[in-house]
Amino acid sequence: MRSAWLWLLVIELLVVAVPSVPTGNEILTVTSFQNIEANITQYTPTWDSLDSRLLPQWYDEAKIGIFIHWGVFSVPSFGSEWFWNEWKDKKLSQYVDFMKKNYPPGFTYQDFASDFTAEFYNPDDWAEIFQSSGARYIVLTSKHHEGYTLWPSKTAFSWNAVDVGPHRDLLGELSNSIRKKTDLKFGLYHSLYEWFNPLYLHDKNNNFTTQLFVKQKTIPELYELVENYYPEVIWSDGEWEATDEYWTSKEFIAWLYNESPVKDTVVVNDRWGKGDVGKHGDYYTYSDRYNPGVLQPHKWENCMTIDKQSWGFRRNARLSDYLTMEELVQTLAQTVSCGGNLLMNIGPTKDGIIAPIYEERLRGMGAWLKINGEAIYSTKPWTYQNDTFASGVWYTKRGSDVVTTTVYAITLNWPKNGILKLAAPRLVQNSTVTLLGHGQDLQWLSRDGIQIWLPNKAKITSEWAWVIKMTKVTN
Amino acid sequence: MRSAWLWLLVIELLVVAVPSVPTGNEILTVTSFQNIEANITQYTPTWDSLDSRLLPQWYDEAKIGIFIHWGVFSVPSFGSEWFWNEWKDKKLSQYVDFMKKNYPPGFTYQDFASDFTAEFYNPDDWAEIFQSSGARYIVLTSKHHEGYTLWPSKTAFSWNAVDVGPHRDLLGELSNSIRKKTDLKFGLYHSLYEWFNPLYLHDKNNNFTTQLFVKQKTIPELYELVENYYPEVIWSDGEWEATDEYWTSKEFIAWLYNESPVKDTVVVNDRWGKGDVGKHGDYYTYSDRYNPGVLQPHKWENCMTIDKQSWGFRRNARLSDYLTMEELVQTLAQTVSCGGNLLMNIGPTKDGIIAPIYEERLRGMGAWLKINGEAIYSTKPWTYQNDTFASGVWYTKRGSDVVTTTVYAITLNWPKNGILKLAAPRLVQNSTVTLLGHGQDLQWLSRDGIQIWLPNKAKITSEWAWVIKMTKVTN
Amino acid sequence: MRSAWLWLLVIELLVVAVPSVPTGNEILTVTSFQNIEANITQYTPTWDSLDSRLLPQWYDEAKIGIFIHWGVFSVPSFGSEWFWNEWKDKKLSQYVDFMKKNYPPGFTYQDFASDFTAEFYNPDDWAEIFQSSGARYIVLTSKHHEGYTLWPSKTAFSWNAVDVGPHRDLLGELSNSIRKKTDLKFGLYHSLYEWFNPLYLHDKNNNFTTQLFVKQKTIPELYELVENYYPEVIWSDGEWEATDEYWTSKEFIAWLYNESPVKDTVVVNDRWGKGDVGKHGDYYTYSDRYNPGVLQPHKWENCMTIDKQSWGFRRNARLSDYLTMEELVQTLAQTVSCGGNLLMNIGPTKDGIIAPIYEERLRGMGAWLKINGEAIYSTKPWTYQNDTFASGVWYTKRGSDVVTTTVYAITLNWPKNGILKLAAPRLVQNSTVTLLGHGQDLQWLSRDGIQIWLPNKAKITSEWAWVIKMTKVTN
Amino acid sequence: MRSAWLWLLVIELLVVAVPSVPTGNEILTVTSFQNIEANITQYTPTWDSLDSRLLPQWYDEAKIGIFIHWGVFSVPSFGSEWFWNEWKDKKLSQYVDFMKKNYPPGFTYQDFASDFTAEFYNPDDWAEIFQSSGARYIVLTSKHHEGYTLWPSKTAFSWNAVDVGPHRDLLGELSNSIRKKTDLKFGLYHSLYEWFNPLYLHDKNNNFTTQLFVKQKTIPELYELVENYYPEVIWSDGEWEATDEYWTSKEFIAWLYNESPVKDTVVVNDRWGKGDVGKHGDYYTYSDRYNPGVLQPHKWENCMTIDKQSWGFRRNARLSDYLTMEELVQTLAQTVSCGGNLLMNIGPTKDGIIAPIYEERLRGMGAWLKINGEAIYSTKPWTYQNDTFASGVWYTKRGSDVVTTTVYAITLNWPKNGILKLAAPRLVQNSTVTLLGHGQDLQWLSRDGIQIWLPNKAKITSEWAWVIKMTKVTN
Repeated sequence: MRSAWLWLLVIELLVVAVPSVPTGNEILTVTSFQNIEANITQYTPTWDSLDSRLLPQWYDEAKIGIFIHWGVFSVPSFGSEWFWNEWKDKKLSQYVDFMKKNYPPGFTYQDFASDFTAEFYNPDDWAEIFQSSGARYIVLTSKHHEGYTLWPSKTAFSWNAVDVGPHRDLLGELSNSIRKKTDLKFGLYHSLYEWFNPLYLHDKNNNFTTQLFVKQKTIPELYELVENYYPEVIWSDGEWEATDEYWTSKEFIAWLYNESPVKDTVVVNDRWGKGDVGKHGDYYTYSDRYNPGVLQPHKWENCMTIDKQSWGFRRNARLSDYLTMEELVQTLAQTVSCGGNLLMNIGPTKDGIIAPIYEERLRGMGAWLKINGEAIYSTKPWTYQNDTFASGVWYTKRGSDVVTTTVYAITLNWPKNGILKLAAPRLVQNSTVTLLGHGQDLQWLSRDGIQIWLPNKAKITSEWAWVIKMTKVTN
Repeated sequence: MRSAWLWLLVIELLVVAVPSVPTGNEILTVTSFQNIEANITQYTPTWDSLDSRLLPQWYDEAKIGIFIHWGVFSVPSFGSEWFWNEWKDKKLSQYVDFMKKNYPPGFTYQDFASDFTAEFYNPDDWAEIFQSSGARYIVLTSKHHEGYTLWPSKTAFSWNAVDVGPHRDLLGELSNSIRKKTDLKFGLYHSLYEWFNPLYLHDKNNNFTTQLFVKQKTIPELYELVENYYPEVIWSDGEWEATDEYWTSKEFIAWLYNESPVKDTVVVNDRWGKGDVGKHGDYYTYSDRYNPGVLQPHKWENCMTIDKQSWGFRRNARLSDYLTMEELVQTLAQTVSCGGNLLMNIGPTKDGIIAPIYEERLRGMGAWLKINGEAIYSTKPWTYQNDTFASGVWYTKRGSDVVTTTVYAITLNWPKNGILKLAAPRLVQNSTVTLLGHGQDLQWLSRDGIQIWLPNKAKITSEWAWVIKMTKVTN
Repeated sequence: MRSAWLWLLVIELLVVAVPSVPTGNEILTVTSFQNIEANITQYTPTWDSLDSRLLPQWYDEAKIGIFIHWGVFSVPSFGSEWFWNEWKDKKLSQYVDFMKKNYPPGFTYQDFASDFTAEFYNPDDWAEIFQSSGARYIVLTSKHHEGYTLWPSKTAFSWNAVDVGPHRDLLGELSNSIRKKTDLKFGLYHSLYEWFNPLYLHDKNNNFTTQLFVKQKTIPELYELVENYYPEVIWSDGEWEATDEYWTSKEFIAWLYNESPVKDTVVVNDRWGKGDVGKHGDYYTYSDRYNPGVLQPHKWENCMTIDKQSWGFRRNARLSDYLTMEELVQTLAQTVSCGGNLLMNIGPTKDGIIAPIYEERLRGMGAWLKINGEAIYSTKPWTYQNDTFASGVWYTKRGSDVVTTTVYAITLNWPKNGILKLAAPRLVQNSTVTLLGHGQDLQWLSRDGIQIWLPNKAKITSEWAWVIKMTKVTN
Repeated sequence: MRSAWLWLLVIELLVVAVPSVPTGNEILTVTSFQNIEANITQYTPTWDSLDSRLLPQWYDEAKIGIFIHWGVFSVPSFGSEWFWNEWKDKKLSQYVDFMKKNYPPGFTYQDFASDFTAEFYNPDDWAEIFQSSGARYIVLTSKHHEGYTLWPSKTAFSWNAVDVGPHRDLLGELSNSIRKKTDLKFGLYHSLYEWFNPLYLHDKNNNFTTQLFVKQKTIPELYELVENYYPEVIWSDGEWEATDEYWTSKEFIAWLYNESPVKDTVVVNDRWGKGDVGKHGDYYTYSDRYNPGVLQPHKWENCMTIDKQSWGFRRNARLSDYLTMEELVQTLAQTVSCGGNLLMNIGPTKDGIIAPIYEERLRGMGAWLKINGEAIYSTKPWTYQNDTFASGVWYTKRGSDVVTTTVYAITLNWPKNGILKLAAPRLVQNSTVTLLGHGQDLQWLSRDGIQIWLPNKAKITSEWAWVIKMTKVTN
């Protein structure tokens, strides 16, 4: 279809006046979202049409987002957010035994819900932490495969956060805080399927020739989400058992692009039906924790978890289960170098807390980005992604000069001898080489690539990885 | 429309071969319910057509049923089964204070559900008690206005007795026990509206011009009930805010009469839409505890409660809140005399017990009926309902002789002087007068009505009320 | 020791001015209890001395009391108040299975305590019911074998009704209500031993050669009870594994008789040490439900349960588990005839309710006593206890005339032919025979004992048993 | 009494063969603890005698321990381990409001206990973490001021970890794991007073002229602890309202030193009665978080918390509430320099987890000590504690050479110019200067103190603080 590189070019050239999205508290007048370009871009519910849409610029520039998995699974807080499925469907002994040991026989997953207390939930605090992390958007699980909705959904009577458990519109409150307190974009994860919803199982038993579940549950709730909370990312999931015909995904996206209150800024991922992953949508996620290490022909996102084993909070996670700052920064560098965004996941506790270990990682990332963000935000992939010479060096670039460009080499190792050798960049005489956060020109020498003399490490505050900025790179 | 007396006549003359209803355990083949009279009685969804159906004979003959109110309201077990509404909608201080005193702030009604334990629920025991009461049918709340279903309804995900609370199909188990252990008919109460279901409130806010709730909730669940549990009474309720057009009641009843597995034996009450009460349906209930004291022109039912103040169990009910056996027998006599059936309500506890005080009343009724049932079951109203002379005497009759008939005088008082005077009956010379449970002929004298010499009370075992049986009554 | 009959004589002749016991609210001035007979009756801690005390008159006159078993066992409310022991010590499968089925593994008995809610506990209501029952004293379990105290005992930190569960002084509140609202005596049950108290087990392991438990727990708590709540019955229990030497019972009773605020009115039972039952104490209880059917040589008490299987409330008790009114009245007649008092037990629910079935029995007893109490209160055993001729007839008497006396024949059966034949009484010419509640003289005839013509039963309101009062009986 | 310096000297000269303490699993034969010095050191219950005991060598050498606060306060896990007191005694609004917002009225502290689940408690895991931290001993709260015991105490029936909550001997299991899996010493914290124990309040109301509480509770439980679990630290607390006469502390310590199974190795702190702090005991703690910054005349301990605001776990603690590694290492350096031990506190969660943020701090400390432990363990304070020139430099020393000694300078800052200037040390020509973890000789120059050329920081793995080791220091 489109040339692999086209999307990058297009984004660089595109200047779109994005109307600001209202905060959740304002009253939305439909006219304020009048599509001034209505004549130009009306999408039809076909992938050809939908895929022709240009990716809203903000998303590619953002580079880093925070994924938040919160739900009834945060109550057992054991194993993972797939607790219910692994216990009742797969019947894994780890889960079956946990229940046997700690709960009365017959206890159901739904019985957990009233212990989802959220008594310490302060969305303003969350917003401050997210802002401090350097992330540019967040994606909250509006509803995971369990079917429990974090907002008072009309179609989830007695199985939502207002009716049972927290007794609050967890989603709405976070939406408000994010918009009042930060400049982050607010996005929502949404699972199409629900493991144990009888309506879904009904359709499934009918080989998806019936659509009770889609028409009574999925689609109404997607509209409800968009019309009430204006998410600018819709992170669809749980699509894989049925086609997008069953899910009526294309029709929904067409509405989203043509008429919804967020039509100009919203981005969607690629999980809209069996076989769609990596083929359709504003950006591609492929599988969870996708991190190919090579440049991708289409905008993509690496969604991954700080707790290596789970998206939801696990009460019994050990320190060794959490990625270190070195690992996180490396993943960021690698992802952005290859054209991806990083969506870094945290799992809040059932009482509404972002555990200090997560807070530490988030603030650590923010501290790193404060010094080195120039090499991340709004950058583009360079000709090379990593260096053949120096292992653990990843490149990004900036600037649109036809001949030369500014290149950033993110190195995860500080050479013990103080000299960094790079194979890829070609510098010219008036090229400058600096270390972000240090500022002064560094000595360099072109020979078999280039050699750069790093400054005294005792003077450097950045930790975990360091960025060499090179101007007028010709290669 | 129809002559006031027609229905009585019709029932008397009608002899219908009623196919037996399968128990819940059998596999239902649709053909086994082929309507052999399909050519004769196909109903259209109009009241004219539906109301033309003859009342299945069993219902009029049964005379006495047991109503069972069980649900999440059995957990607070305070005030009444309207707990949720009185607390959250009407905000009555009694309920608001109860919650303030005993629960944390923010506790919701749904949070009660996981304490609906039903650990002692043994439906075979219930069946034995119901059988012993002399009742001929039961009516269980499949779903009350709270929306919680006692069976695993497809459209009540996470708000039903299997998903949260008892973790059992309470309804299905009782259906099985009733059918295996007794010859009672199994009926179901079903509330059309749900106080707080957002889909219902959506339609209501639209002045019932939309029907999301009916199409996605009410009607699917009525079909589910009928197709899975074969109820022979459908006791509809919660209809009053909207018309039967909104509820699509007539369409449902037409299906029920024409095609459903219980089409030949099912009876429905009159609560199918605003304005329908006392006008349409197999029998009329008018308002709760309707007991007019005069003969009614259409088959009716007096649904009333043994606990004078509540249908659901109240943990703090006092002895004085329960009707005495005298009051219950009087209500039965009065109701049957006037052409009604008595539907006597009990509220089981949240742990699944029929409290001994209820059991005592039920077994008391059974003991009374064992002696006196001849004056109740399959009787017809007589020309007179009560006596102008002897207060507390109610009449029923038996027999279809053109000229004379057998009349039963149910007296709630045993005259201290041993002589009962009755104004209404006219006896002939070879009339016999006996006391049920005693058997021997009693002396009587016709003068200003008749005088009957009762036997030595020390020899009589019946309590609370006594029945004088008179043959060949001419009046 | 003492002649078997002495105590009856003594009580009849004794007229003691009993100082009234203050209500729990009054400030107790020690002087108000000055023992005016201090010079005469100072008891030493030997059974010879203690047993020489005269039984306070009120107790023999009272005839009927209510026993109340309430505690943490009211939470599982299953099996009986011995739940903990049968589950953990005897490991009966009924209990082990109940726990396995309904609770998580590891759940302990103590974990039940926080669910002892007592939210409906209204001691004024209880007092009204007790008063209406015709009972003259109550006995409340201050502490059962579980060790949990219904008052805030100093030596039961965190294992009492104020610290965990109801958060109220259940005992103190009932004491106040009984004294404010009724003229009943307030008594306390107290278990000496505690199944699982480590201090008790320590002493037991030492073959009771150590007394840690007695000195730190039992005796301090008995003093606390007496000094704060003035019980006029101390119903000791749980004594059987150790002697009264170990329990230091005699010393305690000596203090109780000599110096305590209730020294003039208090009565104690006979459970004060291994081997003491039926030998020492103000009155004897022998075993539970002791009801010998023959006259006893020492004042005794028949403590029995309305629920035949349990002293504590059982949620799943069936109607057939409760004694009928006929059975209760019979037991009362039999007990009083033979010189005993009846202590009729009820078990309130964990939410603080006297269940209607119990209330019905209590009010039934009150209704019977209202008519027939003359044959019960303050009576003495007659020469004969029951009749050789008429089965189900029990006798009591009144009056101190040397030659004749008034005799009451309590008959549990109403003869079908209306003639009651009695073998035992000898009447004189001017003897009168009446039926309590009827009043008019009955015809009688002396022949082979006597024959009495009962009145028309239709005029009689007493149920379950009837009392024939005969004056001037010579036999 | 004793010269201020004596204790240091004594410890240096002392070589005592300390018999190994048995693990909890071994059967203790009294003979294995035969006091071979029995003839020499029999202590009398006077401070003069008790204070004359030499501090067991292991304690001064250990330098670092871990304090563990765990109890029912870990359930609300809010505010601090003083929750109960601040809520009910001080009535601070923060606590009162928390309870109002989240719990039903009347909820007591004891009601929390059944939610102390400890389901993830794995003492072997804890032992591994403690070992990895470099600590040499631990101190667990056997019982805090709440009175709840972590072991099944005979005198805390129904208020201990086996009876209610975890249903496990938390203390015994940790004792076993520590002894099987590590070479750390096992110590116990024990609170003398209990805020709300009625026996304590009784004595207090009597101005401590009665000793019910001491004799029935405190002393029995201290013996139980020592005889069953062999703690080698007894960390007494809660003493301040009464004298050591009331507590009978001296008698207990005399037994502990003379006869107890741990008499040769046990150390006790200084909190044994009003006025004893900083005066008596094996080592002094003064107030919590005591860290004087100058050399102390008696062995002392700085007990402090990683969470700056609480000893118990707080669910809502933020990252900024936890001390950083820099702060922790500084505190260690400062404490050890001045002759103290550091007792670093963590609060496990109610489910039995050492939260990852704590684990990170503990393992961080272990990593630092692995490189730099030589400057900590078994060192002595040097002549100087910190440097007048270089701020953030703390000294320790090693070696008993009469003239010269090895001195460690722990610097919290790495000079940006790479040259560390120290005022205090005087070096001789063949002194060597090295950096721990680097190994190679560093260049140095004596001028106005000494100047040391640090190595290339890129080659150094130690973080947070660095240790300069200087041999043959003459000053």
